[in-house]
Amino acid sequence: MSASLKIAIAGLGTVGGGVFKALKARNDALSLRAGRRLEIVAVCDRDETKRASFPTGKWLTDLQDLAAIDVDVIVELIGGENGAAPALVEATLKAGKHVVTANKAMMARHGARLAVLAEEKGLALRFEAAVAGGIPIVKSLRESLIAYGITAVRGILNGTCNYILTQMEATGRSFDDVLKDAQRLGYAEADPALDIGGGDTAHKLALLTAVAFGVKPDLDALSVQGIAHITPEDISFAREFGYRIKLLGIAKMTAQGIDHRVQPAMVRVGTPLADVDGVFNGIVADAREAGPYFFEGRGAGECPTANAVIADIVDIALGNVGPAFGIPATSLVTLSPSPSGSASSPFYLRFQVLDVPGVLAEIAGHLAKWRVSIESMIQRGRAPGEAVSIVMITHETSHAAVENALKTIAASDKVVAPPCMIPMEAK
Amino acid sequence: MSASLKIAIAGLGTVGGGVFKALKARNDALSLRAGRRLEIVAVCDRDETKRASFPTGKWLTDLQDLAAIDVDVIVELIGGENGAAPALVEATLKAGKHVVTANKAMMARHGARLAVLAEEKGLALRFEAAVAGGIPIVKSLRESLIAYGITAVRGILNGTCNYILTQMEATGRSFDDVLKDAQRLGYAEADPALDIGGGDTAHKLALLTAVAFGVKPDLDALSVQGIAHITPEDISFAREFGYRIKLLGIAKMTAQGIDHRVQPAMVRVGTPLADVDGVFNGIVADAREAGPYFFEGRGAGECPTANAVIADIVDIALGNVGPAFGIPATSLVTLSPSPSGSASSPFYLRFQVLDVPGVLAEIAGHLAKWRVSIESMIQRGRAPGEAVSIVMITHETSHAAVENALKTIAASDKVVAPPCMIPMEAK
Repeated sequence: MSASLKIAIAGLGTVGGGVFKALKARNDALSLRAGRRLEIVAVCDRDETKRASFPTGKWLTDLQDLAAIDVDVIVELIGGENGAAPALVEATLKAGKHVVTANKAMMARHGARLAVLAEEKGLALRFEAAVAGGIPIVKSLRESLIAYGITAVRGILNGTCNYILTQMEATGRSFDDVLKDAQRLGYAEADPALDIGGGDTAHKLALLTAVAFGVKPDLDALSVQGIAHITPEDISFAREFGYRIKLLGIAKMTAQGIDHRVQPAMVRVGTPLADVDGVFNGIVADAREAGPYFFEGRGAGECPTANAVIADIVDIALGNVGPAFGIPATSLVTLSPSPSGSASSPFYLRFQVLDVPGVLAEIAGHLAKWRVSIESMIQRGRAPGEAVSIVMITHETSHAAVENALKTIAASDKVVAPPCMIPMEAK
Repeated sequence: MSASLKIAIAGLGTVGGGVFKALKARNDALSLRAGRRLEIVAVCDRDETKRASFPTGKWLTDLQDLAAIDVDVIVELIGGENGAAPALVEATLKAGKHVVTANKAMMARHGARLAVLAEEKGLALRFEAAVAGGIPIVKSLRESLIAYGITAVRGILNGTCNYILTQMEATGRSFDDVLKDAQRLGYAEADPALDIGGGDTAHKLALLTAVAFGVKPDLDALSVQGIAHITPEDISFAREFGYRIKLLGIAKMTAQGIDHRVQPAMVRVGTPLADVDGVFNGIVADAREAGPYFFEGRGAGECPTANAVIADIVDIALGNVGPAFGIPATSLVTLSPSPSGSASSPFYLRFQVLDVPGVLAEIAGHLAKWRVSIESMIQRGRAPGEAVSIVMITHETSHAAVENALKTIAASDKVVAPPCMIPMEAK
């Protein structure tokens, strides 16, 4: 057996603690897989009260001191898009040490640059834990689904949003109510903006897009919409049409570039993503003639995420230190997103309107002007003079056409709330 | 870039032809991933009429001649549990060359021995294509879902059986009818015994068990039952109880050893395996605290299987040549199967009985004697003096208890056909 692999863990939060515990508890089994002893030689965390729970050789409280430690791999679990985390990773790579990270924000923002740095020195920069918890989707896209190329990736990548949408469907309660419950249960952060606004999904999607298409991760080439505007009514109408509403990260090759967005979408019941419930994550990858693949598992939490970190560590121990994004970082191209609004699909539209004569004719007229053609419609209940919902499913049409039509419709004095539009995903 | 990786392909059937074509068509993209040029230097097939379709440096018709060729990897796609295939693999490894194979029968029978040979020489023996086509399940179990250990693997591993069962459910037609159609459409072989008898699933399960549990693949430690006895009635009763019938390969850790079997099972609607339709494959892996994972994709066919072969080749080019089964082959232990009949679950039971007084009491009495307790029962229709079906769901009980009870029941002169028993899987 070769010399041991010396590991330092920076950040002993939930994931760092999990990595520490699992590496200690299953050290023999994991070292057998790794072909060498896996040895935690140092940990770094500002909170010295944790020290008793994580007995190890060296306890550091200052990230700067990690540079002086004799290690092979630094596991970056301090988080943050800018600042300390990318500085640590850069210093680590410059010092000739491998990096494993769970930091999706940092990798989405600086991943391409850091990967160049790693590969110049023949070092690994691994980030399986940054996307979809324990699901080995980064490795599968990087190393397995490679022979024919990927044409599309669609994923439920945020457990908090999926939990909220699942609960809204199960209970009929409002977004705000369910969010409060989720916060109480620890499924949502006190500040939930990054989850429910779609930003967390955007970070993960940017990384999947990079691995799937050989492009630089690019948050700025991504349109992002969250789930706060989804109502129980939308969810129940969706069900009536045979769909569920899921927050999806979508990256799809089109003739105009990569259609690249985070957006609530209608997913047909009976297709794999529709059945991903609660805090689980799921990803569909279309791999041309090799057919679609589907992966599902726990997308967050101590053990799933620690599992992903440890798999990356074992890979490094085995010498599997190929390019971070599957092709050399210097070969990653700049992503060409398809023009905003060019994505086309059927759409679900909901209008809150006054129940007065002529309102339907007015809406239909505006849609027709933008060549948005209606496939089916539901208007439920009658309340003369008061607000009712009109719901429509359109034939396939461009996002831009629907948006333009909705802008005119929203201006009508018979329309009492901003119209809601949700694309319907084919698969 | 390093020197090119020199590849020889033995066997130009569907998969071999697919590997050849994809390696040629996407050579630049794949070589970029591999870090070196992927070069087919020789192919070997007895059928010289194929020669025009596969232009390459050296065309061989005798496997013996492969030994003299200067290559880095031989891709074994000739198939067969014994004889030429294992002889070629052994000779290849002894000559210091890596092996990629899609040969499940050979790997299930000789895999442990061949892996020892490979690892003594630091060579790769890769077999992703042997299990579940393009789904990267071997790699995921070997390299990704490793931190907490696997406690169970359950899979739909044979597309032919799954197609037949799906069609039986969709059309209500008999097994024999649907099998004939499947043969006509090319979804089943002219001699379908290996598929419908469960033998093909057994080969694949033996390999998954080895990778998941660190044991030697062992076909003899495996009980195998096929699907030929499943009737449209069973499928329709299953649906009534909220289940679907699927042929599963199951390997589950129990206190008595590994419960290890191929068997039709009732899978609850709404769980991932129940929704795996047609020729698709699906696998659930239970990974302790890291949670269950689910993988779905095309389980056979030219492109999915060629994809798996090519992913293995690229891994070798990158120098990822770790142990075939995830831990050193010399550390693989002999599998201890749980005693036959010890597996316990609820069961679906169907009896064809004469509709005469006392028949139900007789059956219930025999079940009670073996302490098999009934949860629910359906008896449909009345046909005094003629045969009717009685269907029961039992509470959790051991396979052996049910089998013993059924043996006595089968001997009754009121029972006109062998009783049918199908275990109900919890997940």
